[in-house]
Amino acid sequence: MKKILTLFSFTFLLFSCQQTAEKQTVSNTLSTEEKIDSSQIKTIFNSALTEGKSYEWLRDLTQNVGGRLSGSPEAQKAVEWGEKVMKEVGLDSVWLQPVMVPHWVRGEKEVATYTTNGQQKNVAICALGFSVATPKEGVLAEVIEVKSLEEAKALGTKMKGKIVFFNRPFDNTLIHTFKAYGGCVDQRVRGAAVCGEFGAKGVIVRSMTNSIDDFPHTGTMSYGDLPKEKHIPAAAISSLAAENLSKDLKVNPNLKFYFKQSCETLPDAPSFNVVGEIRGTENPENIFVVGGHLDSWDLGEGAHDDGTGVVQSLEVAYLFKQNNIKPKNTIRVVFFMNEENGTRGAKKYAELAKLNKENHIGGLESDAGGHTPRGFSIDANTANTTLLQSWKKLLSPYGLHDIEKGGSGADISPLRAENVTLVGYRPDSQRYFDYHHTSRDTFDKVNKRELELGSASMASIIYLMDKYLYNDTPVKP
Amino acid sequence: MKKILTLFSFTFLLFSCQQTAEKQTVSNTLSTEEKIDSSQIKTIFNSALTEGKSYEWLRDLTQNVGGRLSGSPEAQKAVEWGEKVMKEVGLDSVWLQPVMVPHWVRGEKEVATYTTNGQQKNVAICALGFSVATPKEGVLAEVIEVKSLEEAKALGTKMKGKIVFFNRPFDNTLIHTFKAYGGCVDQRVRGAAVCGEFGAKGVIVRSMTNSIDDFPHTGTMSYGDLPKEKHIPAAAISSLAAENLSKDLKVNPNLKFYFKQSCETLPDAPSFNVVGEIRGTENPENIFVVGGHLDSWDLGEGAHDDGTGVVQSLEVAYLFKQNNIKPKNTIRVVFFMNEENGTRGAKKYAELAKLNKENHIGGLESDAGGHTPRGFSIDANTANTTLLQSWKKLLSPYGLHDIEKGGSGADISPLRAENVTLVGYRPDSQRYFDYHHTSRDTFDKVNKRELELGSASMASIIYLMDKYLYNDTPVKP
Repeated sequence: MKKILTLFSFTFLLFSCQQTAEKQTVSNTLSTEEKIDSSQIKTIFNSALTEGKSYEWLRDLTQNVGGRLSGSPEAQKAVEWGEKVMKEVGLDSVWLQPVMVPHWVRGEKEVATYTTNGQQKNVAICALGFSVATPKEGVLAEVIEVKSLEEAKALGTKMKGKIVFFNRPFDNTLIHTFKAYGGCVDQRVRGAAVCGEFGAKGVIVRSMTNSIDDFPHTGTMSYGDLPKEKHIPAAAISSLAAENLSKDLKVNPNLKFYFKQSCETLPDAPSFNVVGEIRGTENPENIFVVGGHLDSWDLGEGAHDDGTGVVQSLEVAYLFKQNNIKPKNTIRVVFFMNEENGTRGAKKYAELAKLNKENHIGGLESDAGGHTPRGFSIDANTANTTLLQSWKKLLSPYGLHDIEKGGSGADISPLRAENVTLVGYRPDSQRYFDYHHTSRDTFDKVNKRELELGSASMASIIYLMDKYLYNDTPVKP
Repeated sequence: MKKILTLFSFTFLLFSCQQTAEKQTVSNTLSTEEKIDSSQIKTIFNSALTEGKSYEWLRDLTQNVGGRLSGSPEAQKAVEWGEKVMKEVGLDSVWLQPVMVPHWVRGEKEVATYTTNGQQKNVAICALGFSVATPKEGVLAEVIEVKSLEEAKALGTKMKGKIVFFNRPFDNTLIHTFKAYGGCVDQRVRGAAVCGEFGAKGVIVRSMTNSIDDFPHTGTMSYGDLPKEKHIPAAAISSLAAENLSKDLKVNPNLKFYFKQSCETLPDAPSFNVVGEIRGTENPENIFVVGGHLDSWDLGEGAHDDGTGVVQSLEVAYLFKQNNIKPKNTIRVVFFMNEENGTRGAKKYAELAKLNKENHIGGLESDAGGHTPRGFSIDANTANTTLLQSWKKLLSPYGLHDIEKGGSGADISPLRAENVTLVGYRPDSQRYFDYHHTSRDTFDKVNKRELELGSASMASIIYLMDKYLYNDTPVKP
């Protein structure tokens, strides 16, 4: 027994010494003001992790509202939900900004299949947003596989009457998966415009993901300048289906692919941005906007894209109120409508800001998923970028090491100007494209702590921005 | 259409500018040697992310072998699996190290229930490893809730005939969840020893997790010096059941809790560490050990704990071979047996190393899950710690920012000595205790890229350690 005790004590002691030491900003390297900031940030994190609301808000939005594509009844329900939760948080004012949005509907569940070597294979497929339908009987045609828009263009009229299959995969050696996405998404967005021009019957595009699985990823596309009669149906097939089809085409280049979809673009529909604010105590006319987008694709529940950004943005205001942080400037929370297919909400917000001569000092957007915090991407002038980077020592104890120059986000970018500091929240990106725009983007994929750490990260940088940033020149702490 | 095109182009452009710039080590800040290292590390990562084997190995281990508690037939199957995959990788030699291990079996599925306000509640419960069984008819007794071992001790003989309920939750304000675990696990490990002394009938312990859910977490416990007749049954109940029981006890302090378990400790069983190595080209007698543990708890599939560590350790060797990296020193991969309840494999390995006068320069252990990389924890002398920290600029492009002094791991710690540099791989910890020691620790919780990034992180630091570390004094690059 003694011996066993020793073994256990040993294991147990190792458990303790195995822990990574809880890193806290070493106080003696901080100035007096930085110590105050460090302590305030700790309070914000403690609050998010023990009394945060974001997870339950997200449950409600994803499970009771669900997927909420612009113009849909669910999107309207989401607007009502947004107004309700903003009021519950007790913001100083909450209002709706009317905006007309595109209204595309998927129609019946899409079907795709082909036969090779006497074997019929059903293909996981979904129409791309804004695609036209196939004819009622579907499209049946031979397939030409290409890896790029350039390769497709080079085919010219050879593609006439064929289905063009865009199959350039993500570059998995890129550590940041958004970069791999950026390197592939032209196929999805512009494939149909390129191939419609030359009389292809349709395009199918490999899903935008790092993984090989059987979930098709939808997303927006555009016909560009193409006259209506040249619009051809466009759909995404799962990465697994793309791999299989590519193999089968090598064996049987003349196989015929069939797909059918009944999507259509209806007239624009009325909708809203949902806006609420905490008025600033000193300079209420100066505004920091914090937001995510309320709309989502229809296939899943819009959890990581962008339910998490929505609830985190509201939680910034909640954490300010809960911890009695009174911002000098106005903190405005915006749930943007229609980021996915049109960014009409973002344009409307910027248009009204200009019209009303609002003075935006900065903005923060969360639209890269709800995973564990990694940092922020800064779109600002050099002085303000340097200032924000100087906060690394305050933020790194929370895993926020990556504070780099870069873009902010689609919804706040229209506010871009020399003295406006725009920031994108950057959580870990490794799992994001497992879920993005698919039926898998559901509440259960979001981890409560990761979500809350994100809210606290965002509240912390807004606290610092409110304290130290001005629209004219940055002031060093 | 033009207008719509503009909107889409806009959104699309934003996608691109929204990307976080791919960070690569800025080559002009690196010395010539560091540039070579940076390039080698990039090759390692590219290889792991495009031709890695770890994910398929993990699928095989978790789904075809499954949970593999020491002494079980599954643990033996895991040993055979380990030997097979090591040989497949083509290591220079592969062998088994015999070791006797504890052999505890869970028996029938545990049952727990209580009645309050006329309502019967079933409780999610599991026996703790090494606990004795309840009597055949189970244990039925009143409950005393405590928050600590000290509070329990202070009860003294008041606990006689009662069930003591340890209910101190994780401190969720701690950013690193292992620290919260370290702050609670004494209840699980020592609760029964403390309460057996005073004649309690049993102990139930709140599960070790950050989350409130209905999955009980098993784990090891010890009766310490307590004579056998004072051993009382110990079990974990889910955190949700703990919350509910605590509330119900406030209303009805005399409610009686019932539980039944039939676990038992059998005589020690023969088992093995699985060992394989790539022999060093210059100093084959100098050894770096890289490992994880092959055994797991029985409730799940042992995926994050520690299937991921096992496959990542082997992938270090695979990546060396695949990229023709010939280590100067011997790189030895070890799948340790019995980390969970005894660390007999670790002790045996260290004992044999001493007996055979092996010269270990360092070690690396992965036993903190397979989530996205965050860094390494270093247990080494000051000079070597400083040396390893100087590699941050080479490793931070891969998210490896946290390179801190701390413990390494339970399996390599017996090798601890002044000039031996021990390192623990530290992935993100936020999700770990959602799965740890539960039925939820299954293959589907592991993300392929996160797993592979871990393998590459480990291979990179081993590459640097092999190149720059000596057992006597560190040599600066």
